[in-house]
Amino acid sequence: MSSDVVKTAKQLDTMSISPYGPARATVNEKTLSDDEVRKMSDYFYATMYLCLGMIYLKENPLLREPLSTDHIKRRLLGHWGSDAGQSFTYIHMNRLIKKYDLDAIFISGPGHGAPAVLSNSYLEGVYSEIYPDKSEDVDGMRRFFKQFSFPGGIGSHATPETPGSIHEGGELGYSVSHAFGTVFDHPDLIALTMVGDGEAETGPLAASWHSTKFLNPITDGAVLPVLHLNGYKINNPTVLARITHRELEALFIGYGWTPFFVEGSDLPTMHQAMASTLEKCVTEIKAIQKQARESGKAFRPLWPMIVLRTPKGWTGPRKIDGHFLEGFWRSHQVPITGIVGNKPKLLQLEDWMKSYKPEKLFDESGTLIPELKELAPTGNRRMSANPVANGGILRRKLHLPDWRDYCVDVKKNGTQMWGSMNQFATYLRDIVKKNPTHFRVFGPDETESNKMGVIYEAGKKVWMGDYFDEDADGGNLAYAGRVMEILSEHTCEGWLEGYVLSGRHGMLNSYEPFIHVIDSMVNQHCKWLEKCLEVDWRVKVASLNILLTATVWRQDHNGFTHQDPGFLDVVANKSPEVVRIYLPPDANCFLSTMDHCFRSANYVNVIVADKQEHLQFLDKEEAIAHCTKGAGIWKWASNDQGEEPDVVMASCGDVVTHEALAATALLRQYFPDLKIRFVNVVDLFRLIPESEHPHGMSDREFKSLFTEDKPCIFNFHSYPWLIHRLTYRRKGQHNLHVRGYKEKGNIDTPLELAIRNSTDRFSLAIDAIDRIPGLGNKGTTAREELLNQQIKAANYAFHEGMDPSELTNWVWPF
Amino acid sequence: MSSDVVKTAKQLDTMSISPYGPARATVNEKTLSDDEVRKMSDYFYATMYLCLGMIYLKENPLLREPLSTDHIKRRLLGHWGSDAGQSFTYIHMNRLIKKYDLDAIFISGPGHGAPAVLSNSYLEGVYSEIYPDKSEDVDGMRRFFKQFSFPGGIGSHATPETPGSIHEGGELGYSVSHAFGTVFDHPDLIALTMVGDGEAETGPLAASWHSTKFLNPITDGAVLPVLHLNGYKINNPTVLARITHRELEALFIGYGWTPFFVEGSDLPTMHQAMASTLEKCVTEIKAIQKQARESGKAFRPLWPMIVLRTPKGWTGPRKIDGHFLEGFWRSHQVPITGIVGNKPKLLQLEDWMKSYKPEKLFDESGTLIPELKELAPTGNRRMSANPVANGGILRRKLHLPDWRDYCVDVKKNGTQMWGSMNQFATYLRDIVKKNPTHFRVFGPDETESNKMGVIYEAGKKVWMGDYFDEDADGGNLAYAGRVMEILSEHTCEGWLEGYVLSGRHGMLNSYEPFIHVIDSMVNQHCKWLEKCLEVDWRVKVASLNILLTATVWRQDHNGFTHQDPGFLDVVANKSPEVVRIYLPPDANCFLSTMDHCFRSANYVNVIVADKQEHLQFLDKEEAIAHCTKGAGIWKWASNDQGEEPDVVMASCGDVVTHEALAATALLRQYFPDLKIRFVNVVDLFRLIPESEHPHGMSDREFKSLFTEDKPCIFNFHSYPWLIHRLTYRRKGQHNLHVRGYKEKGNIDTPLELAIRNSTDRFSLAIDAIDRIPGLGNKGTTAREELLNQQIKAANYAFHEGMDPSELTNWVWPF
Repeated sequence: MSSDVVKTAKQLDTMSISPYGPARATVNEKTLSDDEVRKMSDYFYATMYLCLGMIYLKENPLLREPLSTDHIKRRLLGHWGSDAGQSFTYIHMNRLIKKYDLDAIFISGPGHGAPAVLSNSYLEGVYSEIYPDKSEDVDGMRRFFKQFSFPGGIGSHATPETPGSIHEGGELGYSVSHAFGTVFDHPDLIALTMVGDGEAETGPLAASWHSTKFLNPITDGAVLPVLHLNGYKINNPTVLARITHRELEALFIGYGWTPFFVEGSDLPTMHQAMASTLEKCVTEIKAIQKQARESGKAFRPLWPMIVLRTPKGWTGPRKIDGHFLEGFWRSHQVPITGIVGNKPKLLQLEDWMKSYKPEKLFDESGTLIPELKELAPTGNRRMSANPVANGGILRRKLHLPDWRDYCVDVKKNGTQMWGSMNQFATYLRDIVKKNPTHFRVFGPDETESNKMGVIYEAGKKVWMGDYFDEDADGGNLAYAGRVMEILSEHTCEGWLEGYVLSGRHGMLNSYEPFIHVIDSMVNQHCKWLEKCLEVDWRVKVASLNILLTATVWRQDHNGFTHQDPGFLDVVANKSPEVVRIYLPPDANCFLSTMDHCFRSANYVNVIVADKQEHLQFLDKEEAIAHCTKGAGIWKWASNDQGEEPDVVMASCGDVVTHEALAATALLRQYFPDLKIRFVNVVDLFRLIPESEHPHGMSDREFKSLFTEDKPCIFNFHSYPWLIHRLTYRRKGQHNLHVRGYKEKGNIDTPLELAIRNSTDRFSLAIDAIDRIPGLGNKGTTAREELLNQQIKAANYAFHEGMDPSELTNWVWPF
Repeated sequence: MSSDVVKTAKQLDTMSISPYGPARATVNEKTLSDDEVRKMSDYFYATMYLCLGMIYLKENPLLREPLSTDHIKRRLLGHWGSDAGQSFTYIHMNRLIKKYDLDAIFISGPGHGAPAVLSNSYLEGVYSEIYPDKSEDVDGMRRFFKQFSFPGGIGSHATPETPGSIHEGGELGYSVSHAFGTVFDHPDLIALTMVGDGEAETGPLAASWHSTKFLNPITDGAVLPVLHLNGYKINNPTVLARITHRELEALFIGYGWTPFFVEGSDLPTMHQAMASTLEKCVTEIKAIQKQARESGKAFRPLWPMIVLRTPKGWTGPRKIDGHFLEGFWRSHQVPITGIVGNKPKLLQLEDWMKSYKPEKLFDESGTLIPELKELAPTGNRRMSANPVANGGILRRKLHLPDWRDYCVDVKKNGTQMWGSMNQFATYLRDIVKKNPTHFRVFGPDETESNKMGVIYEAGKKVWMGDYFDEDADGGNLAYAGRVMEILSEHTCEGWLEGYVLSGRHGMLNSYEPFIHVIDSMVNQHCKWLEKCLEVDWRVKVASLNILLTATVWRQDHNGFTHQDPGFLDVVANKSPEVVRIYLPPDANCFLSTMDHCFRSANYVNVIVADKQEHLQFLDKEEAIAHCTKGAGIWKWASNDQGEEPDVVMASCGDVVTHEALAATALLRQYFPDLKIRFVNVVDLFRLIPESEHPHGMSDREFKSLFTEDKPCIFNFHSYPWLIHRLTYRRKGQHNLHVRGYKEKGNIDTPLELAIRNSTDRFSLAIDAIDRIPGLGNKGTTAREELLNQQIKAANYAFHEGMDPSELTNWVWPF
């Protein structure tokens, strides 16, 4: 049979791109004995049989009775199209895991092909170990089938319920970045990553191939991608399956890989081709690692990857009712539909399922026969049992320095300027230092711009690309580093997700406006975390920490496109079980918050903190007390002395707190007798009723801060409606007058931007005056004077191109 | 000088990747005379001078006085790094526009290099024509400088104020997809597209190179990308600048292009290299188009593109204070900082600016000298004057069939099931048919799945990839088509934005959950539209229509990952001037809404409509009346007969309206005397106060629908908090009890999912019972029975895998 095949990539240039025919492969040696080929085919057929069973059957799992409508699920759901190619690859990796004792996981990029992963997990016994009622017998198989895509059961993606999965694949595009995140600092791990050719069209996936420039062969493991040229998406051919071989090969060389091709539909020759090619890839990976590790010299190899071209819906009927099924997009989901009450179709399905010869594959009790069972690895070497894919098991606590050692020494509240980010960065540097193998910092080219460059003292930026002389002049690049930067928020987030899901810790820092680029990824990660809470064998992983800086209020020349604090709205829609949002007002609160976040598990923590210099409000002890409560009265900034105030001035966010405090000072200057309470919120979800969020406060607490009937001017970092949404159930919420960004901006100085959005001190003071009854003429006069001051300040900015320094350097006067 | 250069791509294999040295290029002929080289260098220097002037100067624009601190802006902002490479390319295109009378626009991908575009627009006279106070003289130049990155002025990206720009580049990654959108159906247009090597790392950009598989050389124009290997981002090298030449070349071959290289720093040889290479690319484009058009046979050529490698900050000082500036990331923004009060640095800047010899380039009055002026094209051939980049000028109204001809014949309200999407699809098909050259439909592989396949009768899916025999079996692919599908929401959205911004019309259809993938792109498009409203010479473009389907409530087997209706929250944060959200409850309202959207201008219209069969509520005339109001009482579903009701049942969205109506029926069945008003909202922003949105309703109108004191059960398609946010200012908003998706789901039948989120008929009826006073024992009994019915229905779904048909086929019984 091997004489039929084309042996070299060069010859492949002239090949047809049809997926049909005997195997054509870059490496094609007769690696397997005929007996091995037969067994692997049988094992493969067993998985294919299970895949169909999952899609169709609720009874009669081994077709020991003639198939009838009663055995068929009434609503048919699930995906068949990519199952064969995925299972085929999985099985071939099993052989090599056994042969080389590999530590490997399987990442299922196409996602919509969970049956492939589930059937393999079931056959290798892991599924029954985890879910004893899905036992390896007829009854267990029946339950295993019925639960699939069935209410109360499991989905047709590699959901959290799937053993061995760290990647659901519901939303496409993240398999490769997840895989890289998983192997960073796991030097012996191979992430066998099935990449769908549909998924490969997405932006995030297209960018993530370049991850090779950030993988160190000494300290990191390897990603072995198998691009599955399955040929079709839901209803279209895929781009990569319809370009020339020359382009396809060039593309992956261009991305920095060595592509190996395995193409065809003839199973015996395909087994030989895949066995020898996959083995070649694994041994190349081992050779690369050996060379780097023995020499101690890291380098960027052209890592091997495989392009696997097989027909979509492989092993199914080529045509149904005169229309193409296998090898066409019609095999994407349920391959034969309209079965209920249709005898010929029922027979068609029965014939097809029986063609896999279940009676030969499973014994009387319904268990896979021993000669096939032994093809799978055992114990934790089984890919669906690898602890890496239940990363919480491997999670070690971070070694955290005492954050209090990094605090700013605030002698008097609200009188010193300091860069909050500098303080945090030093603390972060020491976290990097103390956790050299399980903590990384990720970001799209902004760590330095975000004023955290000091962390390079503990860990430089990983860079496996070429080096220039200029790099020595402050480039902070290294083969082995702890900071991961590529100008792709998608890739950074994907790496971090993979890193955290496989048991480690990390943080993403990014410009606030462009975090929307990964809205959807963060959504999906939240959903993953939430479902994991319902899966009892999943152990909690470290929280995913997202630090937003370069915020809306300081976009001086970047202008309108860089002003969007709305990520908080997206996050606030996710389950209260898994999301937390913090807006520390100053350096000490910021440190306290981050310490808390780094200790937490299973959340997405979003922290908003500007990178510029800011007024510092609280000393160490005050910050502890304030952050512990999450929201509280700042007594030093209030003069209501425990009584009911005339007005509450509240803030949430750093820049806006500065302005709210200045507004308080203006009011007290004009109205010395006015009782003003100053409230600051650090933990945004404190505002929600306690019934709706674990951090929510009681109505009594809420009243004790905001009152029920006094006007409250609330200066918020983000879009003001979020505060209304969070507080709409509170008594007295009508008295909350919220200011925030309302999508007004351009090339503005900070003060000008605040004025445009009415979050500046003058607007806030005027807001208060307008709402406090009984100020009379004094109120009118003050209002007028404040307006004049505002205009004067705005004019100064307009003419000088900067804000008046007496306003930006303002300090708390009391 | 040409003997120094390498002539073929093959030889380039061994080249160093440094940007320094004489030009190395794929095509390098002595195309220009020495005099031409001199003039082009001078023109280039003039633009470089202007770039620096913009960043630094507010006075003394031509340095006719010794430079002093008084002439310098007090706050220095702006980007220098990519200016030189962009301007260099722009100037070379000018030569070819003149030589071949090309119709071309310039798309500035790096964005942060607006000075390059602005300086060219100024020199070719367009800027002064549009902004007469920025005249071509000393005083105009002073104002031109001062406004840049200055409060009240313009930004350092190619913002809407920039003549010739359709692409701001504030958020990176969309230049290539925008360019393709612009040239579709513009057969003679060339979009010269500068792609930043930072931008090139983003996912959206990485995916968009494959757009070549969707461009027809007969009916479409051409995109000529110039990948600018500028070498650095803010603080890092770029990936593409640090891989081998072999990889770089292979990558673009793999993407389907023919890459031409121009690399170096020596200006005279670089001029020759760029002139001959760019000319080669342009003539290749022309040759490809000629061949396709004369033969009438479309094909997919390997379109030419250029890789331009020049030092970042080219023409600047190589080092400042002992640190690399030119050719390193330090030249990214303001190249020399800390100038104010620092005499040596002031001199450094002055020397540098004078090195361009402004006194030779500009005449006494401050105008570019005639021999340079004539290098630019004239009239609309000037790239910054091309009407394509002010697309509203070219916008023709759509020829719309009468939507009423596609209406469902609703004999009795709420009693017939029909697929709303089918009706719309037929209407859409006829729009496609009637507008064969200026309307396209975009979507990520979902048009068929979204039940709109009928449109292929009027226009198939564009596919320039290879064809298989299977495609004839319902593939609906064609070289010339009107539907654009690639599995990249980013690419689809980018194409549509480019298409609309250049004067045409279109629609994107996508699965609701994954529209979050393009949150950030839509944000940016909204911001672009809003700013355009402030730029008086910009003519309104067609609205960008986003149809969301496959919605949260019908994700049967896709499960939790496919449930996210939160895009509406993102859109609702944008300016009321530019966003509209519609949730038509049935087919006729859907048609009416879409007709309205297709006629509108300058909005982002978001329309949510499920693709499954639905109960139809309104006939044609009722739909007109209802959609005109945007929200109204459905009298046929109400029994309050114009009186004050006991309870208001309200809905917004199709699936939820069905359930709300069924809840009304249940209530009336149990409590025949209860007066129930049924309100439906189509136009979401009707709920906001009129002061906050042009569609907002007055408090009086609001009261007339929702009352001020009666309980209102509001069933909402999306997350419930959005309704609270929109209505928090309304009197009686405390009586609004909003139900919606609250992030509870898994593999659920539609009814089960509704029950989980309390949006099902039983929950809603119980909600009402709990809030209507005085129902007494009757209420308790009804509550209990409803709960039992709910449990029974849920159990059925759980056991049968589908919802009870008596519930899904339910009709309005009154």
